[in-house]
Amino acid sequence: MTNVTIAISPDWTIDLNIPGITVLEWDFKTPPPADHIDIAVAPHVTTPDLVERVAETGAKLLQLGSIGYDGIPRDLPEGLAVANAASVHETATAELAMASLLYAARDLDRAREAQVEARWEGYYSAGLADSTIILVGIGGVGSAIAQRLAPFETNVIRVARRGREDMYGTVYSFTDLPELLPTADAVVVAVPLTESTENMVDDRFLSAMKDNAILVNVARGKVAVTDALVAHADRLRLALDVTDPEPLPNDHPLFEKATLITPHIGGNTQAMYRRMNRLVRKQVGNFISGEPFVNVVLGR
Amino acid sequence: MTNVTIAISPDWTIDLNIPGITVLEWDFKTPPPADHIDIAVAPHVTTPDLVERVAETGAKLLQLGSIGYDGIPRDLPEGLAVANAASVHETATAELAMASLLYAARDLDRAREAQVEARWEGYYSAGLADSTIILVGIGGVGSAIAQRLAPFETNVIRVARRGREDMYGTVYSFTDLPELLPTADAVVVAVPLTESTENMVDDRFLSAMKDNAILVNVARGKVAVTDALVAHADRLRLALDVTDPEPLPNDHPLFEKATLITPHIGGNTQAMYRRMNRLVRKQVGNFISGEPFVNVVLGR
Repeated sequence: MTNVTIAISPDWTIDLNIPGITVLEWDFKTPPPADHIDIAVAPHVTTPDLVERVAETGAKLLQLGSIGYDGIPRDLPEGLAVANAASVHETATAELAMASLLYAARDLDRAREAQVEARWEGYYSAGLADSTIILVGIGGVGSAIAQRLAPFETNVIRVARRGREDMYGTVYSFTDLPELLPTADAVVVAVPLTESTENMVDDRFLSAMKDNAILVNVARGKVAVTDALVAHADRLRLALDVTDPEPLPNDHPLFEKATLITPHIGGNTQAMYRRMNRLVRKQVGNFISGEPFVNVVLGR
Repeated sequence: MTNVTIAISPDWTIDLNIPGITVLEWDFKTPPPADHIDIAVAPHVTTPDLVERVAETGAKLLQLGSIGYDGIPRDLPEGLAVANAASVHETATAELAMASLLYAARDLDRAREAQVEARWEGYYSAGLADSTIILVGIGGVGSAIAQRLAPFETNVIRVARRGREDMYGTVYSFTDLPELLPTADAVVVAVPLTESTENMVDDRFLSAMKDNAILVNVARGKVAVTDALVAHADRLRLALDVTDPEPLPNDHPLFEKATLITPHIGGNTQAMYRRMNRLVRKQVGNFISGEPFVNVVLGR
């Protein structure tokens, strides 16, 4: 039987009660909890020196807790692979995107305010059905949102970095956005943070949106220009799970102006933990059986 | 060309700008706006004398604005048919049920409270994915909810008056509820108000639900026993679009205790009006072409 040593950040609770597997907690700041580690499971937020520290343990795999890996250096030490957390966050994040979109489309801020003041006051909303929704980003999270939107009787326009046709129809390109945005009743942003998406939601982007249109951001705060969000916040309905900066300072005008601020909780559900458990167990199983790790994004 | 006279409650805006069709407004309280009316489109809320008043105009069809028709007498005058508004409200109501369910599952009351107080405070939620959701009632609205739930990676248990198998699997019976309810993370009630559903959600029903389980009611207020809701409101998470009585009095404890109170807005979206327009135009078209009316629930 192979003996496997796994060091796991206290950010995670991974159930690995399997004979021959040694599970150690490691905060990745203090010295490693063993001379040799096979698999390291990183904290939610990684620091630049993480890779070096993990490599010194002889680890074969650094398992990240995020889908994005922008903070990881590209020149990895020989023999170390880095895997992202694709399959872990999509479900929870798409769920929050739908919760935020429906909240805004049905004016639940209005209902909740009346409830807090103990008033019963009926109202009408635009609603989601029959509306045109632009989905910017159709990676794992974006596709999961598209699947959840499908039964809601809306017109979904999918937009990605590269325009193309796929089995579901046309995918428009980022360069089509100036023409598409004025048609949208809602825009949902679910892109990774890259050079081409940083500051993408700027004054020009927001100016192209109709009055009272909804903007949902479940991507990264830096995908939007905060000053531009503030400038358009009275005219649009903003539902933001991510902001720039985070945490949003207590005196920030978006707290008052946005329709909904959620404090970067997109992935924060039990479903996320269960899927992380599943992924880590899969990596351990593959290590033992000699199969390649899954989700490898850097190294091998 | 057939001349058709339609009397429409001011509750509705129906676009019928077609030659040969006379559209008159009628509040159904003052005398009819014409000696003879072919089709009458009722207000949202019907009164018991409505049928008699409509029958006196020689109308062939009373088109209701609701799916339920419990307030309409069964002994209709000869020649008058009553049609309900199936196809009009399902979309908007199922949308609100999903909005309420996601609101509760992701604790958006907590996010909104922090936002109002300008605090950024991350938190974790149970979430909807992987949870067991009992859907009580699988008529038009219930089926529309089931369709919208399908991509959310949940375990949906459908319950109706009569247990049966259908193309989607097992439909459990109301009599199975005592055994099913303890398994539910959320219960969504979407039954019509009938003798068998009045007071269905009583102390026994709610006692069978787990701590922190979600109850969404988009059916009718009288389907639940209000005192029982109050008694369990701290233990469960209630998202109520309908209450008994309505409006809920300003000093009612449910305003404070419920996770979400929406003031009977289930159907209140633009989608509802568009679908009502579509239905009324269909009825007019069928009248002109001599085809039977659709959605006839009483008379013929």
